[in-house]
Amino acid sequence: MTGRTARRRVTRITLESGGGPGLAPRTGSSQVTDRADLLAAEEPLGIRIDGQAASLTMRTPGDDIDLTAGFLLSEGIAAGPDDIAEIRICSGEQCGHGEHDDGMGNIADVTLRPGADWHAPGRNFLTTSACGVCGKASIDDLHTSSRYDLRADETQVSAAVLAELPDRLRDAQRVFERTGGLHAAGLFTAGGSLLVVREDVGRHNAVDKVLGWALRSGRLPLSGCVLLVSGRASFELAQKAVMAGIPVLAAVSAPSSLAAELAAEAGLTLVGFLRGRSMNIYAGAHRVTTG
Amino acid sequence: MTGRTARRRVTRITLESGGGPGLAPRTGSSQVTDRADLLAAEEPLGIRIDGQAASLTMRTPGDDIDLTAGFLLSEGIAAGPDDIAEIRICSGEQCGHGEHDDGMGNIADVTLRPGADWHAPGRNFLTTSACGVCGKASIDDLHTSSRYDLRADETQVSAAVLAELPDRLRDAQRVFERTGGLHAAGLFTAGGSLLVVREDVGRHNAVDKVLGWALRSGRLPLSGCVLLVSGRASFELAQKAVMAGIPVLAAVSAPSSLAAELAAEAGLTLVGFLRGRSMNIYAGAHRVTTG
Repeated sequence: MTGRTARRRVTRITLESGGGPGLAPRTGSSQVTDRADLLAAEEPLGIRIDGQAASLTMRTPGDDIDLTAGFLLSEGIAAGPDDIAEIRICSGEQCGHGEHDDGMGNIADVTLRPGADWHAPGRNFLTTSACGVCGKASIDDLHTSSRYDLRADETQVSAAVLAELPDRLRDAQRVFERTGGLHAAGLFTAGGSLLVVREDVGRHNAVDKVLGWALRSGRLPLSGCVLLVSGRASFELAQKAVMAGIPVLAAVSAPSSLAAELAAEAGLTLVGFLRGRSMNIYAGAHRVTTG
Repeated sequence: MTGRTARRRVTRITLESGGGPGLAPRTGSSQVTDRADLLAAEEPLGIRIDGQAASLTMRTPGDDIDLTAGFLLSEGIAAGPDDIAEIRICSGEQCGHGEHDDGMGNIADVTLRPGADWHAPGRNFLTTSACGVCGKASIDDLHTSSRYDLRADETQVSAAVLAELPDRLRDAQRVFERTGGLHAAGLFTAGGSLLVVREDVGRHNAVDKVLGWALRSGRLPLSGCVLLVSGRASFELAQKAVMAGIPVLAAVSAPSSLAAELAAEAGLTLVGFLRGRSMNIYAGAHRVTTG
């Protein structure tokens, strides 16, 4: 396992204040310093399923077993802990695949339960640092169907609780403080208690790490929960929430059109621009109370 | 072609100011309004090469031919306009693939020059809304080799010019203003003149749209240019800059460790945290002047 951060020499330049809109920049004076800086680590994780290369994602090392389990859930390969016999993080050599050995524990070796077949027709599970919709052979295959019906989830969450969550997520982020380079996903109860937080250079990996944690601890479906992501909400993140049975997805920034469409179709409550004391609700507003 | 934005009804909740750290949230009063909101459009684009499904990416519609050409460049399939006979954006039906017809012009049909073979060994070109490292069969295949040697590029750019670029990029963003949901990539001369700006829900797509514009107009390699991205700099974006022969990649936010490593190896100047009057240089600092 490699670290979550990497130290690197950086040249920092600070220009003399001045210039600005409409003014020629002043180039006469600047501070140039060399110093050590911490960067968010980004490393490839190859996922092998029953001995076969299935996925390659660019991720921040750490919680790799959760990440792998979350990937299996998101892709509809595993629905619970019983579907997975073992997930081992190893280097290529340890896995017995010397030709891919990078010596850094960047391979997740998955053994499914005996009899499981992960080769869904027409899909290919190559993935990347912000995907999860990939590996589908055609546009028709975009929607992975979930075993959970969110419409039946009667969770209610107050707007006042939602408004508190971004601060709680930020407080729980450890690596972001030091690097400024990580997305976060946090799972909360409807009352606002933090259940788990995960960080990654890829937002979809942060979410998969949360989902994998839930799958492995037998908590699926995550009814009654709120998933908060640090940035924007894409189709893919909405899809992941649906696959895990999460009734409320909240994002600090904007959702995409397709995220809102999927949310409306699937019965997912989608909150965006959750900042300060306000928020926009793009679907499922009936779950959010203001009384 | 579908639009770059989508209109949607949204419920906006603004809580009474109050609450705050350590205080119980006040839930007695809030403003709830229903209104129309513009979202950044996200739609799948399937890329077919010589009649074969090659990629599926989630993108914001618009500049789809550039996006496709940039994808071909990033993946090492095309190096110049002569490598591409035709790119046609169509619906499945128009392409003669009625089974994938979504009626929205979400398929890019690529015809390579006669004799071209895009089946590089060991690669698979499925892609997504923030990938470009995907489709590689193993970790060893991550680096796509570029035909351009950035070490030979003697471009110099002043820190004062770099400091002006984020404002220029933001001024040129049209859709972001209305949706808050789009990444941008801008290509500038070393003197700070904007050559082209592209927006997308996926940062890597915005970059591919820029690269495709350059490829199609015969401008490769992009020596003497600076590529600015609105967010963070991942390995993948550094890789794309290298493939297009761009000597300077600048990001408003943090780079990842692997982006910095690749930049140092390839001779790419990597600037991060380009904000206000300061910046960090993670590789290739010799190109940035402060005099």
